[in-house]
Amino acid sequence: MKIALAQINTKVGDLDGNTKIIIQNINAAKKMNADIVIFPELSITGYPPRDLLDFECFIDDNLKYLQKIREHARDISVIVGYIDKNPSSEGRKYFNAAALIENTRITAKYYKRLLPFYDIFDETRYFEPGKDNVIIKIKDKKLALTICEDLWNDKDYWKRAPYHINPAEEIIKLDVEGIINISASPYVLNKEKERFAVMKNIGLPVIYVNQAGGNDDLIFDGASFAMDKNGEITALCHQFREDLAADEIRPLSNIEEESVFNALCLGLSDYCRKTGFKKVVIGLSGGIDSAVTAAIAAHALGKENVLGITMPGMYSSAGSVSDSEKLSQNLGIGFKEIPIKEIFDCYIKGDKCVDLAEENLQARIRANILMIHSNRYGSLLLTTGNKSELAVGYCTLYGDMCGGLAVLSDTPKVMVYRLANYINRNREIIPRQVITKPPSAELKPDQKDQDTLPPYELLDAILKEFIEENRSIKEISKKYPGEVVRDMVKKINASEYKRRQAALGLKVTSRAFGTGRRFPVVQGYDFEN
Amino acid sequence: MKIALAQINTKVGDLDGNTKIIIQNINAAKKMNADIVIFPELSITGYPPRDLLDFECFIDDNLKYLQKIREHARDISVIVGYIDKNPSSEGRKYFNAAALIENTRITAKYYKRLLPFYDIFDETRYFEPGKDNVIIKIKDKKLALTICEDLWNDKDYWKRAPYHINPAEEIIKLDVEGIINISASPYVLNKEKERFAVMKNIGLPVIYVNQAGGNDDLIFDGASFAMDKNGEITALCHQFREDLAADEIRPLSNIEEESVFNALCLGLSDYCRKTGFKKVVIGLSGGIDSAVTAAIAAHALGKENVLGITMPGMYSSAGSVSDSEKLSQNLGIGFKEIPIKEIFDCYIKGDKCVDLAEENLQARIRANILMIHSNRYGSLLLTTGNKSELAVGYCTLYGDMCGGLAVLSDTPKVMVYRLANYINRNREIIPRQVITKPPSAELKPDQKDQDTLPPYELLDAILKEFIEENRSIKEISKKYPGEVVRDMVKKINASEYKRRQAALGLKVTSRAFGTGRRFPVVQGYDFEN
Repeated sequence: MKIALAQINTKVGDLDGNTKIIIQNINAAKKMNADIVIFPELSITGYPPRDLLDFECFIDDNLKYLQKIREHARDISVIVGYIDKNPSSEGRKYFNAAALIENTRITAKYYKRLLPFYDIFDETRYFEPGKDNVIIKIKDKKLALTICEDLWNDKDYWKRAPYHINPAEEIIKLDVEGIINISASPYVLNKEKERFAVMKNIGLPVIYVNQAGGNDDLIFDGASFAMDKNGEITALCHQFREDLAADEIRPLSNIEEESVFNALCLGLSDYCRKTGFKKVVIGLSGGIDSAVTAAIAAHALGKENVLGITMPGMYSSAGSVSDSEKLSQNLGIGFKEIPIKEIFDCYIKGDKCVDLAEENLQARIRANILMIHSNRYGSLLLTTGNKSELAVGYCTLYGDMCGGLAVLSDTPKVMVYRLANYINRNREIIPRQVITKPPSAELKPDQKDQDTLPPYELLDAILKEFIEENRSIKEISKKYPGEVVRDMVKKINASEYKRRQAALGLKVTSRAFGTGRRFPVVQGYDFEN
Repeated sequence: MKIALAQINTKVGDLDGNTKIIIQNINAAKKMNADIVIFPELSITGYPPRDLLDFECFIDDNLKYLQKIREHARDISVIVGYIDKNPSSEGRKYFNAAALIENTRITAKYYKRLLPFYDIFDETRYFEPGKDNVIIKIKDKKLALTICEDLWNDKDYWKRAPYHINPAEEIIKLDVEGIINISASPYVLNKEKERFAVMKNIGLPVIYVNQAGGNDDLIFDGASFAMDKNGEITALCHQFREDLAADEIRPLSNIEEESVFNALCLGLSDYCRKTGFKKVVIGLSGGIDSAVTAAIAAHALGKENVLGITMPGMYSSAGSVSDSEKLSQNLGIGFKEIPIKEIFDCYIKGDKCVDLAEENLQARIRANILMIHSNRYGSLLLTTGNKSELAVGYCTLYGDMCGGLAVLSDTPKVMVYRLANYINRNREIIPRQVITKPPSAELKPDQKDQDTLPPYELLDAILKEFIEENRSIKEISKKYPGEVVRDMVKKINASEYKRRQAALGLKVTSRAFGTGRRFPVVQGYDFEN
């Protein structure tokens, strides 16, 4: 039996476009002589459709496109993800569904049983859980059909089982020869290893089909696979791009920096492609964040589509311009210099003082200049701040936080350095002094990040404990200096208001700011309790 | 039996402060000779605590404060809302709980059974549903204890029952004399009438205790009540402020404008009080939105705490300054004039053209000026845009959208006019010409809102259908001109990226942008299908 894993890149809501991709892949799988072609979770609607699901017309249309796909499923079996209506007069209105189509007929339907509710997931908002396991027969092989989370109530993965049922355990008691799992599993660094481990734990052959592509803040990395009952990979799709494979094993990088770099490139290029932006503009400060962002943009979109603008101010080092220019030359991107001093003086007359207002104003003037360019030439402004800065509020709202997409906003500063070194692995693209100089916002004389922040190694370690692991100050202080921990937690909570207005940012850690972390802006919990 | 309804105003996460308020109210209820005092849902933590619940230390602390409250419950019974741990090794970790405390002992615990999952609610993210009804005995009266949504699986309220069980129906079959319901029910215009109707439908006496106060985007309006089995109100707390009442019936306004005005004042004053802001700054354009925002701010915070800044530009009408000055005089608020032309010229030299970039730049320069003031003097910048503008993207990101709180961002333009007339009900506070002149952004020569938008009566009607009712273009076009409907839906979807970075805004309709409407930024659904 030949099973084609159709790891497609869908656009949320684009029923027509997604259906075309599905039909193309059905035809390509036929040419491969596949017996069956399997598509990801909610392949017709794209994942996650979020509150598009509130529109009944959207659900009706998705069912029409299912019928269209059905007509194209000749001489090959097809498994496709879609949204079905719940015929009951009670409960959620819809099911997160999979259909098996054989000879243009829908011969089986399966409804997702475990609905993820944590982090970026909101499936209990929309879907009724399915009640039954579904066993299908493909070429006399009996296979259980499942959707994503259904296989994840795994005892090793969770400290505590979040669900009361475990479809995987039920399935192994049934007389089946394998499991098909259609997924939409967002990228997190090393997530593919977790997927392998969880599926291996089941002890049955698994066909796992994930989507590939960026949708808003989420990057779906693909890396779909077939695994035998011993956990050996027998087929593996590319990571970070669409693919159609049956027996092939594509190379998978083991270098963390490469993985994050590729993820961010996919997130950025899909954001641009799916919104129609061809060109991007980036403010180049001479610092490492904007340099890495520019390198990612040049790689993802083509150097001819990237413009760097350096905007020296009163406290900018000489390097801020020369390093930015050198970087632009190395990358082959466009470059412009626009000083801000004259504009600054127009705002602040006479009553000058080096205070927060003037620091922020410099960042905001730069944002205005960048937005003039964005508005006038139809370029997307990329914001360049990293996760560590955003966490502690070391950034200016309406200033350097401006932009349509925040490429690095879930990438901790230490990983930004690792990315810079990865980018420079063959030759110096990011000028060495950009990497070696002490980080600075250059908004007042002799300012350095580490005047007010701990070393980034320490900061990032604390952030991981607090933001990804939800540990208390007391717990974190067992590992790191208590005073620093307290100070950083205070800063994190005090800057929630900034993050509420932050740009969409690409998620690469287990907990990103944004849709996956829903924190009150106004709250009075004393974490030091 | 005397039952005190303790309609308190809690701050999310402020366990210590909330506990103090609870103890104060226990003591006050004793002085009233109440037999029992009842607090709102999650009164110890405040509602909604959102992802604070991911911190186990927060849950542990909330249980410690429950013990503290317990010690103060002498000579009076107390019902209080808190978060309890789920002792099971499966399922969600916590329960949304209510405790009955009698003589310093917890004699009953109830766990919320129906967990709302729609709009701004995320309770399935955190809580395990309770399984059992709990009947308590107070002075020999048998009463069912319930929490908020438990009584809302009402056939008249929902087109379709969202839940499979109906605690209200179960309770009426039990031998009870009434129902206690502790709630955290956010304000929506006319919501209090819906509450009365749903509770009356049950046909049993109901004691309904809601919280009062603003938390982030949500305004909890209080209006707690006791109702007899015929649906007659026998006690009613104030709307829009904290209260402690037993038999009193406070006046309830029937004027919609008054209701919205009071709601917005509460939302604004609580945002400031709970974050520590004393003063606010507002950009006054001479238009109706900024005028109404200033009037609300003056009423909510005191005229001495409000500063209006008018910032005339190249296309500003004479009235923009003089009307703003007049308004400030009428309100008695501070007033400043800072022209923007010179700064604008500094940005744009030579290559001037009246394009989107220059329109936006004017709004962004104004934002910078306002933020200088905000940063320098510690004032909160209020953003003044209304819901209609925000819906169709008739606003400048990083320009007039700047601010910590958007007072009117869920108030449709037609309601803004109604508020203006309400504010002027006794004397002219908002100058008449502000209300009568055609609305304009004044960012290019002779610009008027209605050059690109339909009349606001029509726009607001379409917005209600699309945003609050989730109707399709086809359906809405049965009532309103199809071409306008299509054009507006396109504009709404195209401006999702702006709203992703919008300020927190006060919710007054059944569906506000923000936490209650989770729309993909990048999506390709063709609503015209």
